Amino acid sequence: MEIFCLQENFKKSLNIISNIIGKNLNLPILNNILLTIEKKRLRLISTDLEIAITHWTSAKVKKEGEITIPAKLLSDLINNLPNKKIEIKTKGDSLYIKCENFKSMIKGVDSKEFPIIPKIKGESIVNVGASKLKQALGQVVNFTSLSDIRPEISGVLSKINSKEIKFIATDSFRLGEKTISLKGNKIKTKKSVIIPFKTVQELIRILGEQDKEEIIEIIIEQNQILFKTPDTQLISRIIEGNYPNYEQLISKQFETTLILDKDEFLNTVRVTSLFSSKINDIRLKVVSKKSLVEIFAQDMEIGENVSELKGEIKGKEMEIVFNHKYLLDGLNNIDSNKVMLGLNGETNPGILKPVGDPSFIYVIMPIKL
Amino acid sequence: MEIFCLQENFKKSLNIISNIIGKNLNLPILNNILLTIEKKRLRLISTDLEIAITHWTSAKVKKEGEITIPAKLLSDLINNLPNKKIEIKTKGDSLYIKCENFKSMIKGVDSKEFPIIPKIKGESIVNVGASKLKQALGQVVNFTSLSDIRPEISGVLSKINSKEIKFIATDSFRLGEKTISLKGNKIKTKKSVIIPFKTVQELIRILGEQDKEEIIEIIIEQNQILFKTPDTQLISRIIEGNYPNYEQLISKQFETTLILDKDEFLNTVRVTSLFSSKINDIRLKVVSKKSLVEIFAQDMEIGENVSELKGEIKGKEMEIVFNHKYLLDGLNNIDSNKVMLGLNGETNPGILKPVGDPSFIYVIMPIKL
Repeated sequence: MEIFCLQENFKKSLNIISNIIGKNLNLPILNNILLTIEKKRLRLISTDLEIAITHWTSAKVKKEGEITIPAKLLSDLINNLPNKKIEIKTKGDSLYIKCENFKSMIKGVDSKEFPIIPKIKGESIVNVGASKLKQALGQVVNFTSLSDIRPEISGVLSKINSKEIKFIATDSFRLGEKTISLKGNKIKTKKSVIIPFKTVQELIRILGEQDKEEIIEIIIEQNQILFKTPDTQLISRIIEGNYPNYEQLISKQFETTLILDKDEFLNTVRVTSLFSSKINDIRLKVVSKKSLVEIFAQDMEIGENVSELKGEIKGKEMEIVFNHKYLLDGLNNIDSNKVMLGLNGETNPGILKPVGDPSFIYVIMPIKL
Repeated sequence: MEIFCLQENFKKSLNIISNIIGKNLNLPILNNILLTIEKKRLRLISTDLEIAITHWTSAKVKKEGEITIPAKLLSDLINNLPNKKIEIKTKGDSLYIKCENFKSMIKGVDSKEFPIIPKIKGESIVNVGASKLKQALGQVVNFTSLSDIRPEISGVLSKINSKEIKFIATDSFRLGEKTISLKGNKIKTKKSVIIPFKTVQELIRILGEQDKEEIIEIIIEQNQILFKTPDTQLISRIIEGNYPNYEQLISKQFETTLILDKDEFLNTVRVTSLFSSKINDIRLKVVSKKSLVEIFAQDMEIGENVSELKGEIKGKEMEIVFNHKYLLDGLNNIDSNKVMLGLNGETNPGILKPVGDPSFIYVIMPIKL
C-alpha cells in the first residue's frame, strides 16, 4: 500500500471507527483496525465481533494493499500530527508514516489475521434522517436493562411498519417508548428486532459525526442489522428472544391526572431526593381540591423535606411512592414545558408524557411499601 | 440560631469551604461544617485536622447560635434551591430550612463536638495579589513528590525575604522554581516553610474564587501558616524537616544551549512519546552544525518515531535521554513562545526556561542508560 491523505480526513475516519476497540487480551487482533485500498479510497474497519464499523475516506492511491494496525497508537499518532498531507506506506508488516518533520514506523499484523466481516446485501427497509434517529434513540437507550439475566431486555426493541418506527427500552422498573413517523417507507411486512445496548450507544455516537440531514438506511437480514450512509456502515448482531408484551402497561385512562411545569417538577424531585432513604423512595400526595401535589421524603438519620407543587390536577386524591431516580430519568428525557402524569391508584404504573408531543411515553412502576 | 440569607451567598460560601471534607469514617464530625453567628455575620468552618477553612458571609440575624451540619447534604440542598431568600433556624440539634415552596429539616450535631480550630494572631509578613499567587503556585505544585517516604519534599517550599517569595517543588526527578517579586514587604528576617501539597491545591482552588485583585495576607507562626482575606481564612500545618539543598542543580552555564519554539517542541515530544518504551525514554540528539535537534523514541514491540526540530543551537554536539513525562510537565508549565534548554553533557541535569521570563526555572534529570 502507498497513499497520500489529509491528516484531517484520516483523523475523522479513525474517530468514527475506533471507539468500539477496547483492550482485548484474548484476541489481540481486535485491538487493530484493518486498512484496505478499495476502489481508489481508503477503507477502515474495526470490530469487537458483535459490531463492525466500516468507513471510507478519500486518498491519493499510488499502490494498493492492506494491513492491520493497533488502533490506539495509530489514533494517538494521527490526532497529534499537524493538519497537513500524510504519506502512508507499507513494507512487510510495518506501516511507515511521514508528515512534515515526523517519520514513524508502526508494527502491524498481516490482514489475513483479521476477522471476516459479514456482508448484508438486502434492500433498505427504512430511510431516516441522522439527527432524528439520534434524538429518538438517545431518548430511550438509557432505560435498557444492564443485567444479563434477561437478554431480551438488554437491548432496544425496534418495531417497524409502513408508517412508523418505534423504539422501546425497559429494565422492568420503567419503560420508554419513542415513535418516529416515516414517509414513503418501502417496507411491506412488519419487523421487530432487538438491538443490543452497546450497538445503540455506538450508533448514537456515530450519528453525531454525520451531517444532520444525512439519510440513514436500515437493512435487516436474519440475525443482523445494518445502518448505512454512503461513507459509513455499522453492522451488528440482533438479540434473539421475545420482548415482553409491554403495551398493556400503557393506560390511556387515568383515575388521577396531573399537569405540571416540567422544570419545577424536576427540580422539586431533585431536592426532595436528597432526603430519601436507601430505597430511593419519594412520596407524592395528590390533593386535587387544592390543585397541588405534596412531594415528601424522609430518612430517620438525615432529615426530611416536603414541597408543594401547584398544577392542573384532576380526579381522585391519592398517594403513591416512586423511586426518585426513575422519575428523574423520565423527566430528564422530556423536552416540553409541561408534563402530564397519569395515575391509577398506588399499585399501578404511572404514565409520564410531554404535553403536546405524543411521540414519547414513559411508564414508571410504583414502589409498593 | 435564626437567620435569613440569600441562596447565592450561602451557596458560594459552602463551595469555598466544603472541598476538604471527604468521608471520614473514623471521626464523623469531620464530615460536618460548623455554622456560627459571629458579629452579625454567618461564619462557616470546615476542617480535616490538617487544614481549616473559615468563611464569613452576610445574613440578617434574628437570633444567635451555632450548630454543625453534614456538609455534603447541606451543599447539595442549597445548590439546588432557587436563588431566593432562605430562612434558617435551629431547634435542638436540627436545622430547619425554608425557601419558597421547600421545607427541609436536617439532623445535625452539637457544636461542642467540633474540633477546636487554632488561631494565629501574628502580623502578616507578605501581602500578595490573589491571581499572582494562584498562578505561581499552579506553576510548581504538580512537581511535588506524592510519596510519603521523604515528607520534606511532599510539599511546596516557600522562601520569603524582603524582596521576593520563591516557591519550589520537586520529586527528585525534576524540580520547578517560581519567583514572585514583592514590593513594600514588611518582613525583616528570612523565612522558609514547607506547605503540604493538599494545602497548596486547596489554596489554588480558593484563590480562583476570589477577586483577581484581592490582597492575600500570609502569616507564619511556629508550625502553622495562615492565608487571609477579609472574608476567608485558610490555616494549615507546616511540614517539618530540611528541604534538600537544590540550588547547586541550577547551572548558570551550559556546554550546549538550544532555543526552540515552545509549541513545536511540546508537540514533537508528545508525538515521539507514543513510541517510547516502558521507561518513558526519548532521546535528544543535538546537531549544532545543522542547527537542529533530532528527537527519537523506539519500542521493539510497537515501532519508532524520529523528528527533526530546527532552532538556535549553540555549543557542543551531544545526546541525552529524558523521561518524556517530565519534559512535557515542564513545557506545559511554560507560557512563552520560545524556550531555552541548557545542557551539560548526558549525565547532568538539563535546565528549561521560558525565554524572556526569568521568574520560572525547571530542572530535569536525565535517564542514565
